[in-house]
Amino acid sequence: MTTGSPARAALIALDWGTSSLRAYRLDADGRTLDTRHLPWGIMRLPQPLQDGAATAALSGFELAFEQACGDWLRAEPSLPVIACGMVGSAQGWKEAAYLDVPVDLKRIGTLLTVVERKGTPVHIVPGLIQRHGLPNVMRGEETQVFGVLFDRADAGADSVLIGLPGTHSKWVNARRGRVTHFDTFMTGEVYAALRGHTILGRTMADAASADMAAFERGLKVAGAPAGRAGVLSTIFSTRALGLTGELAPESQADYLSGLLIGHEVASLADMLRQQGEQPRIVLCGEPALCQRYIQALRHYGLGTPEQAQDATERGLWHLAVSAGLVASPSTAIA
Amino acid sequence: MTTGSPARAALIALDWGTSSLRAYRLDADGRTLDTRHLPWGIMRLPQPLQDGAATAALSGFELAFEQACGDWLRAEPSLPVIACGMVGSAQGWKEAAYLDVPVDLKRIGTLLTVVERKGTPVHIVPGLIQRHGLPNVMRGEETQVFGVLFDRADAGADSVLIGLPGTHSKWVNARRGRVTHFDTFMTGEVYAALRGHTILGRTMADAASADMAAFERGLKVAGAPAGRAGVLSTIFSTRALGLTGELAPESQADYLSGLLIGHEVASLADMLRQQGEQPRIVLCGEPALCQRYIQALRHYGLGTPEQAQDATERGLWHLAVSAGLVASPSTAIA
Repeated sequence: MTTGSPARAALIALDWGTSSLRAYRLDADGRTLDTRHLPWGIMRLPQPLQDGAATAALSGFELAFEQACGDWLRAEPSLPVIACGMVGSAQGWKEAAYLDVPVDLKRIGTLLTVVERKGTPVHIVPGLIQRHGLPNVMRGEETQVFGVLFDRADAGADSVLIGLPGTHSKWVNARRGRVTHFDTFMTGEVYAALRGHTILGRTMADAASADMAAFERGLKVAGAPAGRAGVLSTIFSTRALGLTGELAPESQADYLSGLLIGHEVASLADMLRQQGEQPRIVLCGEPALCQRYIQALRHYGLGTPEQAQDATERGLWHLAVSAGLVASPSTAIA
Repeated sequence: MTTGSPARAALIALDWGTSSLRAYRLDADGRTLDTRHLPWGIMRLPQPLQDGAATAALSGFELAFEQACGDWLRAEPSLPVIACGMVGSAQGWKEAAYLDVPVDLKRIGTLLTVVERKGTPVHIVPGLIQRHGLPNVMRGEETQVFGVLFDRADAGADSVLIGLPGTHSKWVNARRGRVTHFDTFMTGEVYAALRGHTILGRTMADAASADMAAFERGLKVAGAPAGRAGVLSTIFSTRALGLTGELAPESQADYLSGLLIGHEVASLADMLRQQGEQPRIVLCGEPALCQRYIQALRHYGLGTPEQAQDATERGLWHLAVSAGLVASPSTAIA
């Protein structure tokens, strides 16, 4: 996209994670005017310049920030800036405290952490922490949840389960604008580790396209008698089915993906059954991955979920409104 | 150990896996006279010499075999040789067929695959395959099971569950000398992959000694309400407990080990309960690892298992007797 668009902006929103940085320039109605995607995640920031006395040394965070939105701010110096994700972690630009779950989501906007700097300050969104049972944390997903809930008329709905599939899937229970509970599944990262660093990857071959029949086959295992031994056991069938000639090398990766997502969603369905709940489910994530979760949710009797779009930028926008960084009566939270 | 011992041998037995080769020189009573441990697993064989026309090119298998027992065979050329493990796989010296489970263990000894070579032939033990439900395979563990069962008076016992913890744990049901069923859990390899190749390893620090309290803490999770979400979820608590200051970096690896072994043994206990069985359990493996499994078995109500020693060499010995490679009336199978 071109920069320096003549349209006036109202907010700069940053989705700043471990491995990448997305910058959004939003107008007074929260519509996206420009987007930039940079490789400057907090674990791989640009190196500060060391090329002479005249240049004041800028930190990696400042350099990445300059590339993300320096020109936008020079064109409109009074724009407020909001950021979410690992930029607020202990390894980030400035640590933003976790808020304890259960939490009223509207509180998030009132507790932004400010990075004071020479130019425009940056407002960082806090993460969420759950201390009952096994502890659990999120950073960045709280903003997506905010986007999903407050972009609809039903922020106050009785019970919504928001699924955020990814490297670490989060399943977030919300009730009347409060986050009441969430679970994390390391499904995406476990898949990559099994494929790249165990014997299961050795018999896999790259496929020209996804084998959704193999995925479906894996998906069903967790709910079948053979799945009773659990995921540490069923994953070995990826190899054994190959040795018996029942699963082609090109199909093994999708079968494994089905196994893992199947075990995740089967556990989820089981927990919901025990709680006697059948909440409305909203999925939010990369479309091809969401498609896999939709298949899994249907198979395990959880119906067909809704899908949310652009949850991060919508969440950052609504948080900025909620924090008073921008005024937008038409979409503000009551 | 010294080689060329004057004591007369009756058998050379090889435990030849993916990453190492163990050679045993056994006397007419099956007692071990010499042992060698070489790094020549079938995936890392010595390189054939290419240094001149005079030397006949020997394969990697021949070179490793020569180092393992060439001198033993020159001293006593008529010794029979038996081998088990991945040496009989498709990537091994010669493929030895899998036998279908359920199988009468005594049949194994009658179905050895012979590697014909210039010198002494090598007899390779077949693996086992299970085709009902999800397929499952083993190669090498069948020999340990043979050793456990036929080294005792109770080979015909009604029901024994033999646990072989390791990179891939095997749990083998035997009944009156037959293997009736087995399960594989990739627990050891998953532990290594999670520790070495996911975010969980990043907050771990090496410990001077094992933290068995952290192990015990992880062990209990699978059976607690918080474990209901399954292992893909509970493993994230390794990191989250670190972030909340409840688990020191030095304790995180043992906690993760407890989580994984706990989920494995909890699944096992659950399956046994559903089958209405409470079999005698015999464990066989590396002592420190067995200790962890003993703790897990006790916690999940499976009692204190017996422990078997030297199962592989005992199994190779009894298999050689059963195959008629050595005569040993005193310990032969009736």
